[in-house]
Order: sequence, then structure tokens, then C-alpha cells
Amino acid sequence: MATTEGVLVASTSRGCKAINAGGGAITVLTGDGMTRGPCVGFETLTRAGAAKVWLDSEEGQRTMKNAFNSTSRFARLQTMKTAIAGTYVYIRFKTTTGDAMGMNMISKGVEHALHVMSTEAGFDDMAIISVSGNYCTDKKPAAINWIDGRGKSVVAEAIIPKDVVQSVLKSNVDALVELNTSKNLIGSAMAGSIGGFNAHAANIVTAIFLATGQDPAQNVESCNCITVMKNLHGNLQISVSMPSIEVGTIGGGTLLEPQSAMLDLLGVKGAHPTNPGDNARQLARIVAAAVLAGELSLCSALAAGHLVKAHMSHNRSAVPTRSSTPAPGAGGPGGCRRR
Amino acid sequence: MATTEGVLVASTSRGCKAINAGGGAITVLTGDGMTRGPCVGFETLTRAGAAKVWLDSEEGQRTMKNAFNSTSRFARLQTMKTAIAGTYVYIRFKTTTGDAMGMNMISKGVEHALHVMSTEAGFDDMAIISVSGNYCTDKKPAAINWIDGRGKSVVAEAIIPKDVVQSVLKSNVDALVELNTSKNLIGSAMAGSIGGFNAHAANIVTAIFLATGQDPAQNVESCNCITVMKNLHGNLQISVSMPSIEVGTIGGGTLLEPQSAMLDLLGVKGAHPTNPGDNARQLARIVAAAVLAGELSLCSALAAGHLVKAHMSHNRSAVPTRSSTPAPGAGGPGGCRRR
Amino acid sequence: MATTEGVLVASTSRGCKAINAGGGAITVLTGDGMTRGPCVGFETLTRAGAAKVWLDSEEGQRTMKNAFNSTSRFARLQTMKTAIAGTYVYIRFKTTTGDAMGMNMISKGVEHALHVMSTEAGFDDMAIISVSGNYCTDKKPAAINWIDGRGKSVVAEAIIPKDVVQSVLKSNVDALVELNTSKNLIGSAMAGSIGGFNAHAANIVTAIFLATGQDPAQNVESCNCITVMKNLHGNLQISVSMPSIEVGTIGGGTLLEPQSAMLDLLGVKGAHPTNPGDNARQLARIVAAAVLAGELSLCSALAAGHLVKAHMSHNRSAVPTRSSTPAPGAGGPGGCRRR
Amino acid sequence: MATTEGVLVASTSRGCKAINAGGGAITVLTGDGMTRGPCVGFETLTRAGAAKVWLDSEEGQRTMKNAFNSTSRFARLQTMKTAIAGTYVYIRFKTTTGDAMGMNMISKGVEHALHVMSTEAGFDDMAIISVSGNYCTDKKPAAINWIDGRGKSVVAEAIIPKDVVQSVLKSNVDALVELNTSKNLIGSAMAGSIGGFNAHAANIVTAIFLATGQDPAQNVESCNCITVMKNLHGNLQISVSMPSIEVGTIGGGTLLEPQSAMLDLLGVKGAHPTNPGDNARQLARIVAAAVLAGELSLCSALAAGHLVKAHMSHNRSAVPTRSSTPAPGAGGPGGCRRR
Repeated sequence: MATTEGVLVASTSRGCKAINAGGGAITVLTGDGMTRGPCVGFETLTRAGAAKVWLDSEEGQRTMKNAFNSTSRFARLQTMKTAIAGTYVYIRFKTTTGDAMGMNMISKGVEHALHVMSTEAGFDDMAIISVSGNYCTDKKPAAINWIDGRGKSVVAEAIIPKDVVQSVLKSNVDALVELNTSKNLIGSAMAGSIGGFNAHAANIVTAIFLATGQDPAQNVESCNCITVMKNLHGNLQISVSMPSIEVGTIGGGTLLEPQSAMLDLLGVKGAHPTNPGDNARQLARIVAAAVLAGELSLCSALAAGHLVKAHMSHNRSAVPTRSSTPAPGAGGPGGCRRR
Repeated sequence: MATTEGVLVASTSRGCKAINAGGGAITVLTGDGMTRGPCVGFETLTRAGAAKVWLDSEEGQRTMKNAFNSTSRFARLQTMKTAIAGTYVYIRFKTTTGDAMGMNMISKGVEHALHVMSTEAGFDDMAIISVSGNYCTDKKPAAINWIDGRGKSVVAEAIIPKDVVQSVLKSNVDALVELNTSKNLIGSAMAGSIGGFNAHAANIVTAIFLATGQDPAQNVESCNCITVMKNLHGNLQISVSMPSIEVGTIGGGTLLEPQSAMLDLLGVKGAHPTNPGDNARQLARIVAAAVLAGELSLCSALAAGHLVKAHMSHNRSAVPTRSSTPAPGAGGPGGCRRR
Repeated sequence: MATTEGVLVASTSRGCKAINAGGGAITVLTGDGMTRGPCVGFETLTRAGAAKVWLDSEEGQRTMKNAFNSTSRFARLQTMKTAIAGTYVYIRFKTTTGDAMGMNMISKGVEHALHVMSTEAGFDDMAIISVSGNYCTDKKPAAINWIDGRGKSVVAEAIIPKDVVQSVLKSNVDALVELNTSKNLIGSAMAGSIGGFNAHAANIVTAIFLATGQDPAQNVESCNCITVMKNLHGNLQISVSMPSIEVGTIGGGTLLEPQSAMLDLLGVKGAHPTNPGDNARQLARIVAAAVLAGELSLCSALAAGHLVKAHMSHNRSAVPTRSSTPAPGAGGPGGCRRR
Repeated sequence: MATTEGVLVASTSRGCKAINAGGGAITVLTGDGMTRGPCVGFETLTRAGAAKVWLDSEEGQRTMKNAFNSTSRFARLQTMKTAIAGTYVYIRFKTTTGDAMGMNMISKGVEHALHVMSTEAGFDDMAIISVSGNYCTDKKPAAINWIDGRGKSVVAEAIIPKDVVQSVLKSNVDALVELNTSKNLIGSAMAGSIGGFNAHAANIVTAIFLATGQDPAQNVESCNCITVMKNLHGNLQISVSMPSIEVGTIGGGTLLEPQSAMLDLLGVKGAHPTNPGDNARQLARIVAAAVLAGELSLCSALAAGHLVKAHMSHNRSAVPTRSSTPAPGAGGPGGCRRR
């Protein structure tokens, strides 16, 4: 984790300790696909409608898939979601991208597929208004990412025995459940949030993104998260659902030396040798597990009322330092054992 | 700007060039106040209602302001916004914070004010559920930040003569206006966005946040932005409205050496000597002006259809480098002249 | 209640029975003000910024209040909220409107105030783009109504003893709390809702609106509602927060005979004789209390798994009938005793 | 149209006149499927994940389709969309429903499919928390309806010659385009709207719903609409996109005598004799075309600044009357010719 907030590392580490004491975290990958949503235009609705009908048809799907897939060894078009406003058609391409985060790969595929649509499928009156029509949606808050996912979709869960909640987290199960309901569910609802039903997922996501060479501007949607807590037979059951974690283990900032070393440490450096995409998916699971630890720890701190004090003591002890390698023993995201 | 996306620096620089050719950018500061939204609980609605009535009353306002303001030389409570769900009361404190981003300052003030409310104003049955009830809202997407602002609220504008649009931006006024309408307004509306009506504000915000020692996890809301373009007598009028830029020039990451040097270069290092807060406000104006340049340049590139090509050539020329000081001549955000 | 869904009346009636058995409902009025949000335009941001600064200033507030208030005996301007996008300024006027719902009243006041601003305050370069700039927001989903309120803001609560939950509602406290959390809080969050954290507030709101001569198109925002349930010492504590109930007891459809009779039955017909607005506010409290009953009953039915069966038996017994007067003994909204 | 707002009928009628002068309206149906989103629960994420994997698999899809389709002659399961939060799985069933609006039909199918899943597919540890988990989403604002559609999805367009804009609508093309951008796009964006990018779709939808026996509480999502205007070779091109119009021509309120007569007048009464669903789809197209007329007329009135005056003169001439049959010559929604 790369951060200047000293308390973050200590906090996540404490969360990991509690999770490990409870048997580790479970992660489930529920989706994997990067998206790009160009905007194309026609002169009339009749033509825009014809384009949408064709794109939604079997022939359209096949033609576009062939065109798209021809541009890369890794990108495989999964779905196209289309919508019309005025005479504009918005097309959300969703594709696997191997171990790359995939934005460049998908942009290239989209451009070629649109070219084929224009020249070979009878839509030469189509204007490509923008290869990104904000229907992607990249680096901006948007319900479409929350609802349909973008990048990797992961759910992580841990069950923390009640005595660990008390000894490690200095809280109790019912207080945590009430805090989660009143703050993360109701509080965010009152604030008009779409996808922000958590305590501080963005802190953990950003720190890992910086440490592992991800695009830190993509934390805007990557930090989408709903945290759920429940009293399960007296113990604490906690989970985070994160539908749009955008990560890769090749290309971009992952090539820089410290970031590359961190990926290596986590066991997900570069392209996966046998199953392309496994490294990137594993990294997304690590992100979710680390967020789980962060939520657990911060919520416990809030429930115990010592947030401000923690910030003061951790930051004042010294000038904050940016560490792009994890402090020994601190654990970092990889410190969370996953079952 | 600190980024591994090489094209970002070149792009923003091109935007600055166009803006400067048109007479520079105007910025208007329309708000300044950090927020914290605790959740307090009562046993019944009757008591929660009594608390809300008191907080909204003149006596409540005065008592809370006195309590809050006593905790800092800089924090001055501006408003409290209250809401009830169930038996929970959510209170959004909004305060000036001098040249600090202000989260620690405001948390301290909130804790003290709630303590006074509990012990001196007859609400000793109040439970402080969480000093942050997500009604702030910190590091999460939320309409409340978009609508009521958080940190600094800034609008920036530039008018680009039509010949500059052609010569520097390789586009034309009407194409840009249509692109902005179809992508940034309609496209984001179709994607269900709250506050994400722009092309890539997050890229610029994140790069400046890293370069100047801001909290990069706060880009989630700091990148809220609506970009508007208009044909004004044949020229391009472009503006960005950014209601929730969260920045400071003292404390946290601003103390690190390279970040401190960057703030110095921008003329906003540390506390403003005579008017506390002026440095932080100036930094927010710089952020907005840089976003203006970034929007201008990327939208021009999209309108001209050369986004993918630009990414390829800039990134392939060499391994991308992270520069925390601006490349000579590249301009960086400070390179945009503001009128 | 006017409805063709036979089950609705029976259901709300059952909810009322449970509420009355528990001591009745409490309602708290937390806000009262109709809004109108015109859009005005300028040629440059500089001028738009000057307008915003003036509107936010003491002089601007005083001038606009005087102008606005001069147009009606009842409308009293409370606040103006302003925002800039591009060269447009959006101004959300909020005003009391006596016992009228108030849209015509406020539109008249807004037009005059803008006229004064244009002719007497130095803004003769201002174009009134639209007396409604959708910043109101009338009859459309919008976070601003959820967060800032529109019309009447009411919270209603009831505490249902556990034995009543079992005997009348055929459910149990913990099942209801879990249903509310998983459906009304988490389910709506997953669906990307702003303000729709309830089971079926719209059913009750619409039925009462039709029965009492309200504008049924305003149920779009009037049905904004978050339902909260809690186990309080073994009993069920339930509440609804409804920030934007738009009702009146004079003008419009309230003049029609059956609707007028219904208002009379509820004791809120016409203008309140001594305290203008009290009748409309009372009607809003009745709406919230009826929604409380509806939430209680439907959630109990869902928890017991007999929703579909209930619909079938109630609707099949006969051709559904539209009754604009309440069935004798059915209770209707007025049948809920409020403490 | 059933309304007490006298101006509404006159206004929509004027819009129809302009549309007809321009050659009529085009409508495109882009989707058709009612939804129900139950919430089911498991003890652990592992089990919830297994359920999601099975539901998303070919076997799961086939099993659920067979079970669902066996419950009705008309309901045909199109898709299931699944999401996990905590240990809850939300499943959005989408289905054709013939000429019925379809909520009862789909609820029945969902219950049976979940029963089969529980008893025959190895998920007997599944708890059916609620047959509606708000993931539908019925009668509440929610991005999922805006993005994925619910009921019928329709886009309608008309091109109004510039002289008709002047003679009939008393406005001009550029003024209308600016009004639409500043009010319906930017204004709604500033207000934090999801799906409310129009002037007053709810007025038209509600009036037609009441006149034709639809469920008026479903106008909450049925009025979702984005209005787009463009200068096309000097003429006005206007369209409305409405993704979630929930209507039927059999069952419920359509059986009432006046409503049935209105459906007859529109040529869409009862079940379509040869192609089930065609009547309901046709009604949805009529709704969209009427909204198009309403948008055109109100926006023209706003652009010309005579909204308040129009309300005054139309309502004051007489006590408003509720007409459930259209005034002769007024046109009503059916008065708009569609190409």
C-alpha cells in the first residue's frame, strides 16, 4: 500500500489480523469484462433504430464479435448493450482483456468493429461521434458500472468470532451491525449515493492502485462497494460487494520497478503463464479482501469512537512516509489470508 | 502532474496553449467549506425530532458554533444541515478550514460540539453512533457533494477563438459542441451519472493531487464536474463546474519534499501569510483551470477521432515515466494562464 | 383512497389496526416549502458569477425576498439556492405557500423577482431562459428533492408490540427487520435508487392524491421515502422519512366535489381559518401515517410469503371498483390514529 | 387524458398540431419485458456464490425458464440478471407478458421458479426473503429501470419545419434547442436526476394512465424520459426516449367502463387477436408520442415565457373538470398522427 496516511496501514493490518483469526476471507468473482461505450450518430431516429436492431440481432452480434476479436489475441467481446437518445446510439462493448486492464485494447477493437459496421453492414451514413460516449463509463461516477459491472466484479466475506471482535477489534457484534446499517446503508442513502455504501473502500483501493501500478484515476468507480454486516449465530459476518474493480498486471504503470516488485510479492506479476487473466483476477480478489479488512477495522474504530485519536497519534509520531513497499510485518493487502 | 500516462501531460499542455491563445481562463470560487456528517441516535422519533428542532433553532446554532469554533483557530462552522431517518439524526457540519484540507480539524470540532450537545443541551440520551455517518460524504460517490458542495466549489471558463480551435485543437466549434452534448451531457445521463458530466476530469485531478500531496482517495468526489460548451459568436465557449474540490496546502502529504516543491512552484505553498485559506482556494482554482485544459484537449482529440492513435504513440515511444516535477516547457497545470 | 387494487385498502387497513394496537403513530414535520428553480443566462461566466454573488449576498436576498413576497399574501420566500453551469445560473426558490400546494403561486413570485433583478439590480443583460430550469425539480426523479426537501417533509413512527406483530401482522419482529434491511435498504441500493428505499409508498401516496384532489403526477417525488425498522426491546419500531410530500387543501383538484368531501372527512378542507398552512401540513402528516401503515402491512405480507395469494383473492372476488370515498369501516388513511 | 389541469389538454393538443404539420411522429420500440427482482438468502457467501453461478449457467437458465414458463401461456422468461450483496442474491427476472402489464403474472412465475430452484436444483438451504427484493424496481425511482428498461421501451421522434415552429409553437428552433440543453439536460444534471431529463413527461403519462386504466402509481418509473432537440437543416428535430413504460390493455383498471371505452377509441382494447402483446406495445407507443407532443408544447411555452399566463387563463375560465373521455376535437394522445 502506498499512502501518506499512516493510520491506514495499521488499520488494514488490524482488520487482516481479525480476519485471519476467523479463518480467512472468501472471495467470489462474479464478473470480468472491461467496457467502452462509443456514441454514434445518424440523421434520423429511423436510421438509429435500424442500427440498434441490427446490433441486437444475431447477425449483428456475430459480425461485430468477429471484427472486434480480430484486433487482439486477448480481447473477446462478451456483450454489446445498446441505447438510443435522440439520433444517437450508445453501444457498451464488454470484453475480456487477459491480464491487462484493457482500455487501449478495447478502444482498438471498438474502432475496428465500428469501421466494419460502417463499411460492410450498410451503415455508411453513421457518424462516429466519439469512441467514448461516456456510456463506458470511465473515471466518472455512473450507475451503469454499479449495476452492470466494469473490470472485475468481486464479493469478499469473512466471519469473525465474537471473542475476536472484542479482543482484536475492541468492539462487539451488535454495535458493528448497527453502525453498518445506520452509516453505510442509511447514511449513504440519505446522502444520495449510488454505489458508495461503505466506510472507506476508496482509501484501500487507492493505496493498492498506487502500489501496484494501476491507474489511480480509475479508483472513482473501482471503489464502488456495499458493505454488509450481520449477526450470524453471535459472530460477525461481514462482506463487501465490489462490481467494478479495474486492474491489470501488465502494461501501463505495472512496468515501473517498485510497482512490478509489489506485484511479484503478491504473486501476480505480468501475464499469467497458462490462463490469461488469472493474475488480474487474482489482484482484484486481493483488492476486495483488503477492502474487507479496511472496512472491518475502520468500522470497529468508529463504533469504539476513537477515529480522531487514532489519526492524531499515527500521523504525529513522525513525518508521514510514502512507502511503495510494505512495511515488514505490516501485512499489506497480501497479508490477509484467503481461504 | 504525476502520471504514468504520457499522453496526459501533452494533452493538457495543448489545452493550455489553446486557452492562452484565447486570453486565458477565468475562475470563480462559488463555495468553500469542508464537511463532516456524524450519525447520532435516540430511542424514539420524538427525541430525534426534538434534537433536530434544537439543532435548527437559533439557540442550537449558536451553541454548536461556539463549541465547534473553540476547537481551532481556523475552523469556523458555517452551516449544519440535518436529516432524520428512523431514530437517527444526520448532521452535516460545513466549515472553513484555513489552508488545510481540513478533515482532522473538522472531526475534532464535531466531536466536541456533539459532546456539548450531549452534556449541556439536554440530550444526554443521545448515542454518538459514528462521527462519520456517511452524510459527509467522504471518498464515496454521493449527490449531496454534487448539490451542496464539499471543499472548494469552482467554475472555470475560457473562450477559444475559432481559428485557434482549428489550428491548435485541429477541430471546429460545432463539432466540439455536438460532442460535448452527445457525450458529456446525454451519454452520462444515459449511464445514470450523478456529477460525472465530463470527459476525464479525474485524470487531471488525480495527477495534480499526487503531485501536490493531496489525498488521492478524495478524487472520488473532487472530480465531480460538468463541462459545458457553446458556440459564442462563432468561437468556442467552454466551462467546467466543479463543486467539490478537496485540497489543502498544509498538513498531510503536502509536507513531503517533492510535493512541497510543486506547491512552491505554483505559488501556494503552506499557509497563506495574511489571509488563511487563500492558498488552498488558489490551488482549487488551478485544479479547475487544468481540468478545463484537459477537457478541451481530450474532447478535441475525440472529435478528431485520434484518441487511440495518440495513446499509442505517446506510450510506446518509451517506458512511461512518473515525473513528480513538471517536464520543462510542458506547462503542467500552472502553465495555464488565468486572467 | 382511490384505487382499483382492492388489496391496497385491506392492506393499509390492517397496518392501521396494528399501529393503533401499539398506541398510534407519531409524526414530525421537518420542513415546509415549495420550490421553483428557474434558469437564467448570461453571455460570460464573469457575469454569471456576479449574479450568483449578488443573489447570495444580504442585499440580494433582501431585494429578492421583498419582490417575491409582494406577489402574494401567503408566499414567503425562505431561501434561494444557486448554482452555475456554463453561463447559466440556476436559482432554487423555496417558499411557504399557505394551504395551497403552491406551484402557481411560486411561479408568479419567481417571475416578478427575476423581473426586479433584471431591471433594478443591474442585471439587464440577463436572459430568462426558463422559469423552470429543472432545478425545482417538479415531477421528475431528482436527488435535490430527496436531500433538500420539497413541499412538506415528514417523518412518521410507530412501535408495534411483538404480540401484535404476531397476531395482526402474522409475522415476527426479527423477520421484518431482516426483510426491511435486505429489500428496502440493500435491494434498493443494488438497484441504484435515490430516495426509493421503501416497499410501496407510491401506492398509498397515489391513492390519497387521487382521493383528495392532489396532482397525481407529483407522486413521482412525493413518494420519496426511506423505511427503517428496528428491534426495540423485542418490539417492532418502524418509521418512514418522506422529505417531499407535495399537497394542498385549496385550489386545483381539491375543489371537485368528491375530493372536497374527502378533505372534509379528514378535517383538512380548504384554508385553515387561523394558521394558514396548517391544513396542508396536516394532510401531509396523514399521508406519511398512511404510508407507515402500508409499509407495515406489505412488508409483513412479504415476510410471510403471501403477497401473490393476497392479490389473487382480493382481485378475483369481483371486478375491482374505484371508490373515491372510503368504504365504510375500511379505515382509509384517516383510520390511523396518530398520537 | 384524465386531468384537472385544463392547460394540459390544450398544450398537448397544440404539440400534436405541430407534429402533424411536420409529417407525424415516428416511434421505435426498443424493448419489452416486465421485471420482478426477488431477494433470496443463504447462510454464507459460498452458498450465495454457488447459487449465482448456477443461475448464470446454461443449466440454470434452462431450468428456471422451463419452470417460469410453465405458469402462464403468455409469460416467457427472457433474462435473469443476478447480483450478490452479503449473503443475499437478487435476481431480476424479465419476461414478456402478452397484453397484460404483467406484475401478477410475473410474480406467480417467479414464485414457482424459486420453488423449483429450492426443491430440485440443490438449493434447499435457500430462504426466500421476499418475492420482491426491490431489484425489480416497482414504483420507486431506480437507475436499473432507466438503464435496463422495464415494461415497454420506446423512442419517439418528430421533425417540425421551422415555419411551423414559428406559426404554431410561437418560438424558434435555436431558442428551443438552447432551452432543452439548459433545462432538460444541464438543469436536471445539476439537480442530480437519474432518468428525469425532460420537461413534464409525468403529466402526460399520468393523464393517459388514469384515462386508460393503468396503475397510476407506476408513473414513478413510467415517466422516465430524456428529451433531445436538435437543429436539423434549420428545422427542429425532437425526440423522447422512454425506457420503462408499464402498460397493459387487459386486467386491472382496463376493465372499468370509461377506461375500456378509451382503449377502444385508441384501437388497443383487450388482448390482441393474433399477436399477443401488440395492443400493449401500441399503447406504449401512443404514450411516447403524446409525451413528445407535451414536451414540444411546454418547452415552446417556456421558451416564449408564457407558462404562468397559460395556467392562469385556462384554469380560471371555469372550475376545472375531470374528463375521462377526450374533449371532442382536442385530440388527446390518439390525436397525434404517427407515421
